[in-house]
Amino acid sequence: MLKPNMYYGNLKESYLFYHIAQKTKAYLQEHPDAHLYRMGIGDVSLPLCDAVVKALHEAVDDQADAARFHGYMPECGAPFLREAIAEYYGKHGVSVTADEVFVSSGASDELGDLLDLFDRGSDALVIEPAYPAYVDANVMAGRNIVHLASSKENGFLPLPDENTKADIIYLCSPNNPTGAVFSREQLAQWVRFANENGAVILFDAAYEAFIEDETLPHSIFEIEGAKTCAIEICSLSKTAGFTGTRLGYTVIPKTLCRNGMNLNEMWVRNRTTKTNGVSYIIQKGGAAVFTDEGQRQIHDNIQIYKNNARILMEALDSIGIWYCGGKNAPYIWMKCPDNMGSWEFFDWILNEIQVVGTPGEGFGACGEGYFRFSTFGSPEDTKEAARRLVALLSKEKPISE
Amino acid sequence: MLKPNMYYGNLKESYLFYHIAQKTKAYLQEHPDAHLYRMGIGDVSLPLCDAVVKALHEAVDDQADAARFHGYMPECGAPFLREAIAEYYGKHGVSVTADEVFVSSGASDELGDLLDLFDRGSDALVIEPAYPAYVDANVMAGRNIVHLASSKENGFLPLPDENTKADIIYLCSPNNPTGAVFSREQLAQWVRFANENGAVILFDAAYEAFIEDETLPHSIFEIEGAKTCAIEICSLSKTAGFTGTRLGYTVIPKTLCRNGMNLNEMWVRNRTTKTNGVSYIIQKGGAAVFTDEGQRQIHDNIQIYKNNARILMEALDSIGIWYCGGKNAPYIWMKCPDNMGSWEFFDWILNEIQVVGTPGEGFGACGEGYFRFSTFGSPEDTKEAARRLVALLSKEKPISE
Repeated sequence: MLKPNMYYGNLKESYLFYHIAQKTKAYLQEHPDAHLYRMGIGDVSLPLCDAVVKALHEAVDDQADAARFHGYMPECGAPFLREAIAEYYGKHGVSVTADEVFVSSGASDELGDLLDLFDRGSDALVIEPAYPAYVDANVMAGRNIVHLASSKENGFLPLPDENTKADIIYLCSPNNPTGAVFSREQLAQWVRFANENGAVILFDAAYEAFIEDETLPHSIFEIEGAKTCAIEICSLSKTAGFTGTRLGYTVIPKTLCRNGMNLNEMWVRNRTTKTNGVSYIIQKGGAAVFTDEGQRQIHDNIQIYKNNARILMEALDSIGIWYCGGKNAPYIWMKCPDNMGSWEFFDWILNEIQVVGTPGEGFGACGEGYFRFSTFGSPEDTKEAARRLVALLSKEKPISE
Repeated sequence: MLKPNMYYGNLKESYLFYHIAQKTKAYLQEHPDAHLYRMGIGDVSLPLCDAVVKALHEAVDDQADAARFHGYMPECGAPFLREAIAEYYGKHGVSVTADEVFVSSGASDELGDLLDLFDRGSDALVIEPAYPAYVDANVMAGRNIVHLASSKENGFLPLPDENTKADIIYLCSPNNPTGAVFSREQLAQWVRFANENGAVILFDAAYEAFIEDETLPHSIFEIEGAKTCAIEICSLSKTAGFTGTRLGYTVIPKTLCRNGMNLNEMWVRNRTTKTNGVSYIIQKGGAAVFTDEGQRQIHDNIQIYKNNARILMEALDSIGIWYCGGKNAPYIWMKCPDNMGSWEFFDWILNEIQVVGTPGEGFGACGEGYFRFSTFGSPEDTKEAARRLVALLSKEKPISE
């Protein structure tokens, strides 16, 4: 009798975005003419930039022509893209070779797959509030989760101390959902901890392109010692609008070893066994992101999102609401007014001003009382949502239930 | 200290296609003007069909337009594609609902990922010769492999008997590498065995579109009882030339349960945790395969490959070489002449007639003495390779070492 993976039974029902969708759907059924200001799910709204679109069309034409047709791609990524990404790192002062870069279908896919490299007895440390899949992917493998709650007091950027215990350490910076960003000095403490304890850091850098403060690190590999303790997971989803087009990349240094095993070589073996690589068409589109033209165009788009963030930050500042993020990240993490619960605040602003955000409690228990706004909406909607928020929150506050 | 997944240390070096590439490269370095007749790796040579190319261009244009832009796709697949695939099954007399269909990046990716559904203590039965990843993906999870050797005597289609023991059963039909296809009656024996023993069949149907004998099943779900014991993994790689474009699909019946767990629901949870779905662009291209126009065009291409198979089969028939496959599959599995070893035969025909195939031993020990030809090359190359094979094998045979 086949036994299924019974660890799936340990998963908590995690219907964060499903619940949001159900609640907004119910609202729209009651108010069919309402326009919703959607700043909940972190999905982009701007189309792909011209350089990427041109490259995608060319790649489709290649696939239509016998002489230029591409069959199986190398499992770890097309050399043209691995080299373009290594060069991109070089421009940011980080030395990475093309064979340390692995092309993926996106950060979420990779974050799930990479766990196959680790023993199931390893402990996984997750700083909460966090992207829910960090926890769930490890629960599915039967791993013990060490929950490290962050808070307003430490700026949602906790550091390791003598009580910290972990084999796998998730760090997301700029952070989803809080928008907080580790400084070089803070990151150096985590790198030192990982090297001293033989842990491996999974550094989720999906939002690095949103950093504008030049003192903040874009890559963990800017920190000395990271190449013996870290794997960096990146994505074009937010950087270049690839949420529905799908492309990411991962850096595993060739110097990253544990227990006599080389993790870069293990990942090569994993990929050559378990995939046939990423679509040639999508990889060509992705390579265009790293051209000078592509970089200019994606940064024009990022500026539009960053302007959305500024509009929201000014609105919250004007009414004295505490928040973090926004400046170096596409998320704003605000304290709900009057100690409201995060789902209570969700319902209130949906019903009163038709603004949709994400309740902080969905990212872990310590996110209760906070609320995430994404800045990926249209400038028009963001402006109007900010205006409505100010009007609502300046009025007499509701009495908490 | 993090412990890596030490099961990777149990993997055998499996450099089948790497060795072939090294040997052909060495040959070309010594003979820089030689033209090689490549019938080794199972990669397609014909470009994507017009209907697919048109749909891909349209989808790229959608991604370039804010009003038509697609962000995150549903993790289990776009409804338009899941429905098109369910309808495709319906046309073949199999009733499958859209929510039993999961869109994947390809069969190889899916065959690796799906194993997460099963306990690591489960035994995996692999009929050899086999696609090497069946074994390797299970070794990486520490599973016990039950090797079931097939042979010329059972037509490379073994059946379960009272000694068979397995929780996970791999069946690939039409088979890679042998090209053998299970009949309905044979498949019914495996389905009965799986249901009686609580096993789950992973049915790899990547080559179903090559079946021309109308009595042979395209899908395991044509067999009564399969919906309580089987998962079917399909691919557009060979069907529609998607080896480098990447798209596949998997059917997990909603009636497939083990130990109180519903495997369809488990897979939904896996996908929503571990992926953000397949590229919108590629899914639009894939949907075009299932239109009437797309079906006509891909079957025109398949006929070209099937004609290659006929040329090779006639050549082998003309010189009395035993083989199977070719008629309902894109692979021909031949007995090496004069008891030659499969690598010996590889070297011989590379050096004598510049034809490249795949040594049977690379698919498992019981493949020794056999050789696989893929029929995905160009008609011109296939004709010339067949002519050269006949000329070489009709001559006095070499003395085996």
